[in-house]
Amino acid sequence: MRFVLHSFVLLLLGVPVSVPAAEPPLGFASSQAAQQLALEDRHDAMLNSANLKKWMREMTTRPHHLGSPKAKENAEYVAKLFQDWGYETETEVFHVLFPAPKARELSLLRPYPFKASLTERIVSTDSAAAALEKEALPPYNAYSGDGDVTGPLVYVNQGVPTDYEVLERHGIDVKGKIVIARYGGSWRGIKVKVAAEKGAIGCIIYNDPLDDGYAQGGAYPAGAYKHGTAVQRGSVVDLPMRPGDPLTPNRGATKDAKRLRIEDAETVMKIPVLPISSVDAEPFFRALDGPVAPATWRGALPLTYRLGGGKTIVHLKAEFHWNIVPTYNVIARMKGSEFPDQWVLRGNHHDAWVIGARDPISGLVPLLEQARAFSELAKKGWRPRRTVIFCVWDGEEPGLLGSTEWVEHHADELRKKAVAYVNTDTNARGLLGIGGAHSIETLAAEVAQLVPDPLTGISVSERLRSARLVHGDAEERKEYLTRKSIRINALGSGSDYSAFLQHLGIASYYIGFRGEGVGGEYHTCFDTFDHYSKYIDPELGYGVALAKVCGRITLRLANADILPFDFNAQAETINGYIGELTRLSDEMRGDTETHNRLVAEDRFSIAADPTLKYIPPTRKDPVPHLNFAALLNAGKKLTQSAADFHKALNHARSAGRNLTTEQLTRLNQLIYQTERTLIDKRGLPRRPWFRHQIYAPGFYTGYGVKTIPGVREAIEERNWQETDEQIEHASAALNRLAGQIESATGLLR
Amino acid sequence: MRFVLHSFVLLLLGVPVSVPAAEPPLGFASSQAAQQLALEDRHDAMLNSANLKKWMREMTTRPHHLGSPKAKENAEYVAKLFQDWGYETETEVFHVLFPAPKARELSLLRPYPFKASLTERIVSTDSAAAALEKEALPPYNAYSGDGDVTGPLVYVNQGVPTDYEVLERHGIDVKGKIVIARYGGSWRGIKVKVAAEKGAIGCIIYNDPLDDGYAQGGAYPAGAYKHGTAVQRGSVVDLPMRPGDPLTPNRGATKDAKRLRIEDAETVMKIPVLPISSVDAEPFFRALDGPVAPATWRGALPLTYRLGGGKTIVHLKAEFHWNIVPTYNVIARMKGSEFPDQWVLRGNHHDAWVIGARDPISGLVPLLEQARAFSELAKKGWRPRRTVIFCVWDGEEPGLLGSTEWVEHHADELRKKAVAYVNTDTNARGLLGIGGAHSIETLAAEVAQLVPDPLTGISVSERLRSARLVHGDAEERKEYLTRKSIRINALGSGSDYSAFLQHLGIASYYIGFRGEGVGGEYHTCFDTFDHYSKYIDPELGYGVALAKVCGRITLRLANADILPFDFNAQAETINGYIGELTRLSDEMRGDTETHNRLVAEDRFSIAADPTLKYIPPTRKDPVPHLNFAALLNAGKKLTQSAADFHKALNHARSAGRNLTTEQLTRLNQLIYQTERTLIDKRGLPRRPWFRHQIYAPGFYTGYGVKTIPGVREAIEERNWQETDEQIEHASAALNRLAGQIESATGLLR
Repeated sequence: MRFVLHSFVLLLLGVPVSVPAAEPPLGFASSQAAQQLALEDRHDAMLNSANLKKWMREMTTRPHHLGSPKAKENAEYVAKLFQDWGYETETEVFHVLFPAPKARELSLLRPYPFKASLTERIVSTDSAAAALEKEALPPYNAYSGDGDVTGPLVYVNQGVPTDYEVLERHGIDVKGKIVIARYGGSWRGIKVKVAAEKGAIGCIIYNDPLDDGYAQGGAYPAGAYKHGTAVQRGSVVDLPMRPGDPLTPNRGATKDAKRLRIEDAETVMKIPVLPISSVDAEPFFRALDGPVAPATWRGALPLTYRLGGGKTIVHLKAEFHWNIVPTYNVIARMKGSEFPDQWVLRGNHHDAWVIGARDPISGLVPLLEQARAFSELAKKGWRPRRTVIFCVWDGEEPGLLGSTEWVEHHADELRKKAVAYVNTDTNARGLLGIGGAHSIETLAAEVAQLVPDPLTGISVSERLRSARLVHGDAEERKEYLTRKSIRINALGSGSDYSAFLQHLGIASYYIGFRGEGVGGEYHTCFDTFDHYSKYIDPELGYGVALAKVCGRITLRLANADILPFDFNAQAETINGYIGELTRLSDEMRGDTETHNRLVAEDRFSIAADPTLKYIPPTRKDPVPHLNFAALLNAGKKLTQSAADFHKALNHARSAGRNLTTEQLTRLNQLIYQTERTLIDKRGLPRRPWFRHQIYAPGFYTGYGVKTIPGVREAIEERNWQETDEQIEHASAALNRLAGQIESATGLLR
Repeated sequence: MRFVLHSFVLLLLGVPVSVPAAEPPLGFASSQAAQQLALEDRHDAMLNSANLKKWMREMTTRPHHLGSPKAKENAEYVAKLFQDWGYETETEVFHVLFPAPKARELSLLRPYPFKASLTERIVSTDSAAAALEKEALPPYNAYSGDGDVTGPLVYVNQGVPTDYEVLERHGIDVKGKIVIARYGGSWRGIKVKVAAEKGAIGCIIYNDPLDDGYAQGGAYPAGAYKHGTAVQRGSVVDLPMRPGDPLTPNRGATKDAKRLRIEDAETVMKIPVLPISSVDAEPFFRALDGPVAPATWRGALPLTYRLGGGKTIVHLKAEFHWNIVPTYNVIARMKGSEFPDQWVLRGNHHDAWVIGARDPISGLVPLLEQARAFSELAKKGWRPRRTVIFCVWDGEEPGLLGSTEWVEHHADELRKKAVAYVNTDTNARGLLGIGGAHSIETLAAEVAQLVPDPLTGISVSERLRSARLVHGDAEERKEYLTRKSIRINALGSGSDYSAFLQHLGIASYYIGFRGEGVGGEYHTCFDTFDHYSKYIDPELGYGVALAKVCGRITLRLANADILPFDFNAQAETINGYIGELTRLSDEMRGDTETHNRLVAEDRFSIAADPTLKYIPPTRKDPVPHLNFAALLNAGKKLTQSAADFHKALNHARSAGRNLTTEQLTRLNQLIYQTERTLIDKRGLPRRPWFRHQIYAPGFYTGYGVKTIPGVREAIEERNWQETDEQIEHASAALNRLAGQIESATGLLR
């Protein structure tokens, strides 16, 4: 009934569902459009959810974390599939640091004794229960420091820098203490890094039922959420410093690569950390004394959340075997018929923390089905004009190890040949989520208009637009009233695109459906086939939809005569970021003036409850007027060069001008290498591995992106000299980009 | 140490603390200023917290709800004090409907049986424990309907109209069902009224630990908050319809007054309702099925909050003895020496729901101490120029009964003679809170600058300003950067000022300190002397500060030659409200256009999870351009007449012009009766008892104020014809006000 209604409305609205738009797809001349769209339709029609289900079933019978037998088996299984489908397939092995737990202990010593179980109960009715009991890694945080510490406990909320400001107001520090932080709000490694920076000697991370336990819904297997002893494992490597093997920065971790000593590896944490369940956490919270935590810090445990810092004494021990283990990356190529040295890459990891039905297998099986469809097309005589490479990474979970080592190892070749990288990781029933480089925003938006949502038949673009129109913030709601195509998000970190985009400057996507098939299984023992099939995407329809989105994108990148980069969209977005930076500094200037006046007038103390301990904030460094001229000028130049390019391209198209293969090769090389111009080899301050001038994970957010990160973080950290320097770096990058676009325009004239 | 710092800063800032400003207080000529301030200082110096403590102790030994022996004893005790202090004292008795519980039963029938205890455990260590065990009323909601009902249970969050919109989206209605609502977000009677309007047959109200239980802090006696079985009692009379005895609207409930039949009393609820504890509530929540409640609906019980509406079956029985009981209002007069027929009224109620150390005794004992100080001043020869009347009300808790009946009974005399009414109710350690008529805003703001905060020595005005500067919303923070004097809030309902201000148009205040001495004792068995002394205001220093604020205000109103009404402040505030209304209608117009477009495009359905039941919202009536001209013109006229008045007043003052007693009498009568011009005898739509055109409790908020309520609620309810009518009523009132101010100005020229 609802579907009928939708279809009716769609007719009224003229919303396209798998109906080609009047305009040819970006990257294709009108004459090629029908053929390309027919190819994409054939691709989509070949996709079969039964394959996804079968492969998921087979790859999720046992735990398959990095270094496990099943991880190797899965790599071999995938390699075999590619080989059977006719791909030129190899398994590239790197040797990476991957600590395994040797000792894990956590006890409350005072005011009463309690020993944490540190054990996740296996749900006995799950079909993977026996394998889990036998092979699952226990809950731990990879790249925790070794340590055996005892000290007072402090609750630090999500453990991000602003949380420590709140503690400071209460006169509570964490020097020589152990912190307990709840998951959420940042990459988990940030919690440990910040705690150590503040002087903490140990760290506990726990899952509050508020976030993914009973507050959200029923516990697995009755519901999709965490039971009391479920624990989120995960890496705490300093991801925003750099991903990849901690011992081999900037180079592939080959067997004989030069390695740092572990104690010199700056992405390994310096303090011990353990993740625990809410059931293990509860006695610690009951024991905490001190001021009541602010309302936004309170979870859903039935108790008074307090900040501690006094008489609650905890003992924490975490020791590790610092093993070097092999990662098995499966690389499968289908050589391009015309431009074999232009590579379109498509990747997803295969390693999990435990069974990983959702993370990562739900992202991997659509990749496999896409690869199978490509091979079917190939059997019928089709060949991509450019080389398509499917990459199935190992060691993503500990820190994007497989992909990063591979990219570092093949950096020179990738710089020359990589057109774009399409990443997926996990997938679920829900709305399309796309992050990526804005040079390829329009391509994704066009494709999204052609892929129907599996349950409603509405295009995934229109479902997303509708959600933004109904649930978005004021700005989004306003924008989508007039904007017909979807926006893509800027990328931070947390999946395998990082080395491609942020280290080498390869235009990348990170794509997945999410938001409606939801649960608390992430990095637990119940991210299983049974859980996924019951709660996340039972029919794997959204897996097929993901294969369609990624397949069409890959096919367009592989076949376009002139690559579907949209510099107008890129220029608009980058100029938007520049505007944000100028507003940010203006707002900070005004806020700082007010803050300093309130400090001078002692307003903070006067406003505080006089019976409670309160340490007022201090004066802040005033915000000078910053010189954004270079950035504004570069932004303007970029806008102009982008407009010129697309004008010249349209003119060339409408004039029916034909380029030779050599000219096309050169033109497309200039186009896809535009993203490379945004790389500054000096890297970002204090983290030279991150080189992209527009996108980076926040130094103190981890997953969350900072756009024009050098400038933005310099402003946020109130480092005015660095702001000036970084404005120079970013402006130079934008001028390089504009120059390269102009060179491409030159070839079109 | 902190005090020293504050004093130092104060010196730097020149913040006045008990130091008279250069300008004379509003209402006084320069020549009279020193004498008045000296009088006020003498008053303040006489106040002694030991008296407050003693009286609180004596009045809180036993429960003293309306109709109880101890309530009568307390009235007699207070009357005796006034008599001893030389006041002309009488006890006026009215006879009001006050239901007492006959039967209370609440059970879960399905999916499993559970019988609610409906009992509040007495904290045995409290010194009032024995009296509580013997005399406390059980938890119930006065003016619940009689009823014995069985039906499915639905969770309705706080039970306000927007909550039912959320339920509607889930396809859940409450027709023939029993609702469970948590306390908070509105006057509790709204929850029942709205539930009944929506077709519910019964209502349960409970305290979630999120709001005043363990989520906030420790349970009494270890902490100030609710233990698991504590229950908030309270009235559910339809207060925003009208307060007072349900059977005698618009007239005093004298013994032989004409009475409505109970079934015709429209402020009595039509369905049965019971209040329960969180311990009693938990099994009901565990039994609820259906969709998971939205995040903002979730409390702190350790479970998944669900909306229900299906298989959870509840039986609720509530029956009452519909008694008529006597209320004992104690009225104590000190006759004015020059203007005996101009009355300054000061009131607080004496009845409690149980012991009521905080509510109401903490508000009453400062009133008594103020009255004692006045009597001391009188013994030394002072007399107020105007008559001062202290009113100690009975029956406030069931529905402002004592004060409303008294005001209705003496309406004609009060219209003529009442200058202003100063109300208090409860008091606690914290910041000064003042609501009131904006004609007397400046008076309160001036006084607040002279009263020091007991713990810091900073003026209570500066503590409040500092809190707004630090914690206020963006608008407040901005305003207080330049504004030196505090704003007062507009008044809704919930205490004894209602009949004075909103029925008769007597300028009123509602004053109390709050926000730092906090707990969960409200209307429970642990609102006791022990609890108050430990957690709320241990030294009763804030009680003394309240006596100072109210005392100085009373003294100025009693002694001013020209009453301290500030029409400029009033005009500015009212014009602010008019601006809000125009913006409200503009925003609603834009929002409605967008909403209707989203409805037409089926965006709500498309954005929703297709696997969940979802009923999209429907089209809304478009918002026409409304004619605010009359209101805008009246606002402008008011601004002009106010400016003219204060110019003429200043001119008369600086010219040293003396008015005769007769002229002063007439002028001041015009001034204080300005508030009467804001009364429209037709009253507000559907609730004619409420007659003030600027202030009323929201029809669907209860406590919360709606300013220019006739117009605002007509817009909110999208009743455009009524909006036009109400703009006319409000404009006429403002024109009357301007005209009366002009008449006063005439007397000054």
